[in-house]
Amino acid sequence: MQKPSIPKGTRDFSPEEMAKRNYIFNTIREVYHLYGFQQIETPAMENLSTLMGKYGDEGDKLLFKILNSGDCLSGISDEELLERNPARFASKACEKGLRYDLTVPFARYVVQHRNEINFPFKRYQIQPVWRADRPQKGRYREFYQCDSDVVGSDSLINEVELIQIMDEVFRRFGIRVSIKMNNRKILSGIAEILGESEKIVDITVAIDKLDKIGLAKVNEELQAKGLSEKAIEQLQPIILLSGTNHEKIEQLRTILAESEIGLKGVEELNFILDRLQYVSLTSGLELDLTLARGLNYYTGAIFEVKALDVQIGSITGGGRYDNLTGVFGMEGVSGVGVSFGADRIFDVLNQLQLYPKDALLTTQLLFVNFGNKEEAWLLPQIARLRAAGIRTELYPEAVKMKKQMSYADAKKIPYVAIAGENEIVQNKINLKNMITGEQKLIIIEDLLTGSCFSF
Amino acid sequence: MQKPSIPKGTRDFSPEEMAKRNYIFNTIREVYHLYGFQQIETPAMENLSTLMGKYGDEGDKLLFKILNSGDCLSGISDEELLERNPARFASKACEKGLRYDLTVPFARYVVQHRNEINFPFKRYQIQPVWRADRPQKGRYREFYQCDSDVVGSDSLINEVELIQIMDEVFRRFGIRVSIKMNNRKILSGIAEILGESEKIVDITVAIDKLDKIGLAKVNEELQAKGLSEKAIEQLQPIILLSGTNHEKIEQLRTILAESEIGLKGVEELNFILDRLQYVSLTSGLELDLTLARGLNYYTGAIFEVKALDVQIGSITGGGRYDNLTGVFGMEGVSGVGVSFGADRIFDVLNQLQLYPKDALLTTQLLFVNFGNKEEAWLLPQIARLRAAGIRTELYPEAVKMKKQMSYADAKKIPYVAIAGENEIVQNKINLKNMITGEQKLIIIEDLLTGSCFSF
Repeated sequence: MQKPSIPKGTRDFSPEEMAKRNYIFNTIREVYHLYGFQQIETPAMENLSTLMGKYGDEGDKLLFKILNSGDCLSGISDEELLERNPARFASKACEKGLRYDLTVPFARYVVQHRNEINFPFKRYQIQPVWRADRPQKGRYREFYQCDSDVVGSDSLINEVELIQIMDEVFRRFGIRVSIKMNNRKILSGIAEILGESEKIVDITVAIDKLDKIGLAKVNEELQAKGLSEKAIEQLQPIILLSGTNHEKIEQLRTILAESEIGLKGVEELNFILDRLQYVSLTSGLELDLTLARGLNYYTGAIFEVKALDVQIGSITGGGRYDNLTGVFGMEGVSGVGVSFGADRIFDVLNQLQLYPKDALLTTQLLFVNFGNKEEAWLLPQIARLRAAGIRTELYPEAVKMKKQMSYADAKKIPYVAIAGENEIVQNKINLKNMITGEQKLIIIEDLLTGSCFSF
Repeated sequence: MQKPSIPKGTRDFSPEEMAKRNYIFNTIREVYHLYGFQQIETPAMENLSTLMGKYGDEGDKLLFKILNSGDCLSGISDEELLERNPARFASKACEKGLRYDLTVPFARYVVQHRNEINFPFKRYQIQPVWRADRPQKGRYREFYQCDSDVVGSDSLINEVELIQIMDEVFRRFGIRVSIKMNNRKILSGIAEILGESEKIVDITVAIDKLDKIGLAKVNEELQAKGLSEKAIEQLQPIILLSGTNHEKIEQLRTILAESEIGLKGVEELNFILDRLQYVSLTSGLELDLTLARGLNYYTGAIFEVKALDVQIGSITGGGRYDNLTGVFGMEGVSGVGVSFGADRIFDVLNQLQLYPKDALLTTQLLFVNFGNKEEAWLLPQIARLRAAGIRTELYPEAVKMKKQMSYADAKKIPYVAIAGENEIVQNKINLKNMITGEQKLIIIEDLLTGSCFSF
């Protein structure tokens, strides 16, 4: 018989991996709660009519589609079958698909429940999503997203708070990061003053490569994309913009003086930076014009977080969008949100060994099992320890001590309690510290008060 | 445009529902941890070769199958297409399916990771499962299961601990329950002494109806199923078995004196009841011979939990099985487990209004927003409160007070802080208790110390 396996691009999570992942999600969740965000969940399956056309043609192909139950072929003519067009076939044989991200289901949720929702709605959502991408290192077909959004409020205070949230989450993780911020309106303004509004995507894509390929090559690329000499020249101070955030803003005010939308973007940035003066951030916040993620989606602020001590892509990102729900017929719902990249954060915490010891600790104390006779004494003691909140196991079988010790070792249980006949007549326990090897005779009350433990 | 919807049988969970569900899962999780259980997760999608044939023919039909990505029709001949056999078609066009329960994926996990697992393996798993059942009240196509199992240990101490776990979970919920226990070996023994071993299923199904249809009808049914008069007569003391658990065990020892397997079951029950004397249970534990859930699967103890104050099916169940992983080619792995029915527990807690107030409390304090001018004073104060762990919001826009108050009301925020120009010059806050309507002028330190709060 073949050893069973799981579909490519998917993962099992072992107890240790789960403890680490729970630490990540719980940390993020706690910070969300401090800011008044509330959790929702949506079903794994959405109607394909909800999902199709929302992620571009490429995205449509990456949706996992669920075959209709019952007779999946009814309603398809012989001609249609023999046409062998996979997309058209799927549109007849499948009504449902697995969610591709959390944004579209959230938009659908907002429209469907508009009358029950208390706006401004601060929601977070931590659930898996599925994409039929080609699996490769660090890219999975099933992975968790961890999104928070405020919808139904245009106030920039929301942007300020989301920056505080990102800062606080990474402070708690102990990951040194740089938070980068940009504004789509500034990018629009730049394209406008260059007279190249329709080339805004080409321009930002090229600027974005400055670090990697250098100025000369960026200019070459801009030329290849058909930007005029004059526009490229005008762009130079923008590409090379430097100094403090405040200095950058002053320069942008001059550069964008003729663009109404550009100046609006500058003032938005300025407001956010102003308000952040009144709260202290742990991380650096940097105005970065090369930041252009999800350009077609964001309409105001754009955020991204990069780890300083690990070479890895952005570990968090987000921004403001104007029209979350228009595609479902509900206009005028703007919002702003961020999404934490749990898998990358997992890798960063691993690489820097930043997991707190107690986040990985499961059982605190294992009682060795010497057989039936001792159980009458042990069971009530163990019940008392558990009632006191001490995570305690009794090894279920009276096998060789060595085997029981190996179990404790493998499970990283820090203390083992040995209570055989000799100890029990004294009403005592031999407590072994599994790290130091130290052993001492104690009474059960020492365990209850924790006076003999240190985890 | 049509209002968007979700597939039938699936659900969205609102913030309030999520708070309740998280309370349920966190309570169960905490108790699992006290007993040394560790969490794992498996992918939503399994290979269909893993799932098919594990749940009977009916189960195979209830699997959600995922259409292969890319060209799903390649490898299917025109003849096969025109044959229009849905099952055969799906076997060619689909390699993956959504998990139907947590047991089969767990068995697959144990076999696949046998060399990394530390046995005895105490694992729990809280994840959704999917079934293409006809949706009806209380039955969904996506629902969470919440399973714990110990595998790789035959010790009855595991049964004892699982009973303690069920007892402790419902004690924490405040749900009064009866824990019912039976043993498959006793049922086998009964069938054996009646000389009707092959009718064991009919017998237990009939016995199970005693409460609903009464003794006369049970006997009629047994007759209809072909049991001899003699067997039915022999069965009477068993159907009518009564008294304390201890008395029932004594009677069973006599009744089953001639059945080796029956006596083995009695001794197993006796051991478990004996050990439970040494720990105090909150709930009643009742030996119930009519309990026969999952008869073809369980080989030893069988458990079920019934709520005493709500009319609803069993809210938790489980038992011991001999051969979890044989179907994947790994013999000799026995185990015992229980599964909490989260949806039914949710309904019971709702009906009895047992949710603790603080489980549903999200934001504790809302600051009214009076406009930009006040933000310079407010933002650092709010940052201090959050740093002290107080879940605090600033309403993001300076809209009418009434609207801000309605927001707090709808979100059930218990306190609203009003700090306008007048208060700020005094460095004070007007704190309004949203339940009593009471209002008092305080300093921010009163908030930090919590001296003016009671949640």
